[in-house]
Amino acid sequence: MSSPIDNRPVILTGDRTTGPLHLGHYVGSLKNRVALQQSHRQFLLLADMQALTDNARDPDRIRRNVLEVAFDYLAVGIDPLATTICVQSALPALAELTVLYLNFVTVGRLERNPTIKTEIQLRGFERDIPAGFLCYPVAQAADITAFKATIVPVGEDQAPLIEQTNEIVRRLNRQVGRDVLPEAEAMIPTVGRLPGVDGKAKMSKSQGNAIPLSASPDDIRQAVRVMYTDPDHLRAADPGKVEGNVVFTYLDAFAEDKDFVEDLKAHYRRGGLGDMVVKRHLEDSLQALLAPIRERRARYAADPGYVLDVLRQGTATAKERTEATFAELRAALGLFTFT
Amino acid sequence: MSSPIDNRPVILTGDRTTGPLHLGHYVGSLKNRVALQQSHRQFLLLADMQALTDNARDPDRIRRNVLEVAFDYLAVGIDPLATTICVQSALPALAELTVLYLNFVTVGRLERNPTIKTEIQLRGFERDIPAGFLCYPVAQAADITAFKATIVPVGEDQAPLIEQTNEIVRRLNRQVGRDVLPEAEAMIPTVGRLPGVDGKAKMSKSQGNAIPLSASPDDIRQAVRVMYTDPDHLRAADPGKVEGNVVFTYLDAFAEDKDFVEDLKAHYRRGGLGDMVVKRHLEDSLQALLAPIRERRARYAADPGYVLDVLRQGTATAKERTEATFAELRAALGLFTFT
Repeated sequence: MSSPIDNRPVILTGDRTTGPLHLGHYVGSLKNRVALQQSHRQFLLLADMQALTDNARDPDRIRRNVLEVAFDYLAVGIDPLATTICVQSALPALAELTVLYLNFVTVGRLERNPTIKTEIQLRGFERDIPAGFLCYPVAQAADITAFKATIVPVGEDQAPLIEQTNEIVRRLNRQVGRDVLPEAEAMIPTVGRLPGVDGKAKMSKSQGNAIPLSASPDDIRQAVRVMYTDPDHLRAADPGKVEGNVVFTYLDAFAEDKDFVEDLKAHYRRGGLGDMVVKRHLEDSLQALLAPIRERRARYAADPGYVLDVLRQGTATAKERTEATFAELRAALGLFTFT
Repeated sequence: MSSPIDNRPVILTGDRTTGPLHLGHYVGSLKNRVALQQSHRQFLLLADMQALTDNARDPDRIRRNVLEVAFDYLAVGIDPLATTICVQSALPALAELTVLYLNFVTVGRLERNPTIKTEIQLRGFERDIPAGFLCYPVAQAADITAFKATIVPVGEDQAPLIEQTNEIVRRLNRQVGRDVLPEAEAMIPTVGRLPGVDGKAKMSKSQGNAIPLSASPDDIRQAVRVMYTDPDHLRAADPGKVEGNVVFTYLDAFAEDKDFVEDLKAHYRRGGLGDMVVKRHLEDSLQALLAPIRERRARYAADPGYVLDVLRQGTATAKERTEATFAELRAALGLFTFT
């Protein structure tokens, strides 16, 4: 239970439980969540129901990764006393709000959602779109509003989903005649998306270009060894390009000493600095960053009972909060309730 | 709680709570429900969430009619000790199953549903179809399967909805590798649909051509007085038509003495029988049918606390049953559960 008066802004964020998290998640969101967890009332949703919207044939994988993602959270420093970690499929009010909100959004509006349009193409769904996939912006609106979150960290491409949420919020508040639900704001990360080790725009497990948070020292070494640099930088003596050179992008993201990175960049540009040397520096940074995360992760993975307890308690807290919102909205709309 | 072994076939039926029920409901379904409630394990769903799919702007009306429809049920002889009466919006597992099933149905399949296609036209929705309306066959599949109903009384035009349910059932059973959910069968009423008092095909409150179960003696008299007969039967002495003559359709449906009705028909056909006389017979039948229903209804309406208790108990029984189904399906699919 939180203290009686908790005026901190409410953040809802989380991850689809499709696989363990990787360095891209760390840079893009996990680090930020750790930094915000004291100043904000933060809820982390293990989004196993949303993961099903395009993985209905493989629920087993979705289930296994609920715990894997929870291990990742705790390993990077999410503190379960500060942050509420909860399991989406164990929160019935989220489904109840989804079914309710579906009545306040038209099919045409969902089909016009830019995020959905892009993702339908990416997944090659075309006319075989699962209805759950078309409707997932509504489910997301249910998640956000159920927690009364006012801040939702999302990638830039996901911002239309927050707009969809706020449309539903305004529609309901207008009908009810007062602000029963708060609008939410997208919190777009200031750091860009981390590319894959192969230089492709996005680090992703399915692309095989990701460094998972549980990577062993050897995995890290190997990933850095094959990492994409400047393909025209053939000899150490030649000048090299820093832009689009993944090793430098990673050094920017992970090296502690930014001045040192700037010196390295200057040296690389004018020539005389070999890829091997730069990569050694990056590897050192990554080994230093990931060693304690890997260690903590192994400890949690060895004690799943403890992690389950964390999820059980977080989910109980989240259940109370989301059911209170649903009850409040039901009453405001004038739906039937047993008294 | 039902007895430990209850092998009676399970029926799920119910009504959208958009208004009090009328004689059309009585002939088409209520009478049958009363007849089946001992031989079958019967669940009656007060479908307030489904009523919202095309009444999102008027939740107040939906709420008020939850009790009104319950009064109707009890008034016609639904026995709460035999039949479980429950409120849809108070059963979270129905929403949870809906959100789950949405992943197993494509948008294209929903758009091709003949019932939905017709109803979209009827309601003039076109491109402004609420997503909840497009998805309501999935919600209905959730209702039917949550209760593990094998028999679902529906009008002929609703039969495609049962087919949609069974498609989802087969899809899930195939994925799970065993019959975790039963298929359902449509039970199509043998008596045709009761026309409105104006001769239009369907009795409907919104058309103003309905006789509600709570109709006063004067209401009944007035409804029969203006009832559509044979427009060419101008003088009593003339031969009249029985086909399409609403008074005779109603006599067929409501008069106790079928031989007497046949005699009346013959007399009317050959001439010499005035509309007034036939209407008097019909009025007598309707007054006799509705008097005890109206009386019982008034008694229940005067004691809403008792009726709320009936709904509370029925909903508790239904909650247990529907949540057990959801838990069973979750486990079978291999979704996450706290143990």
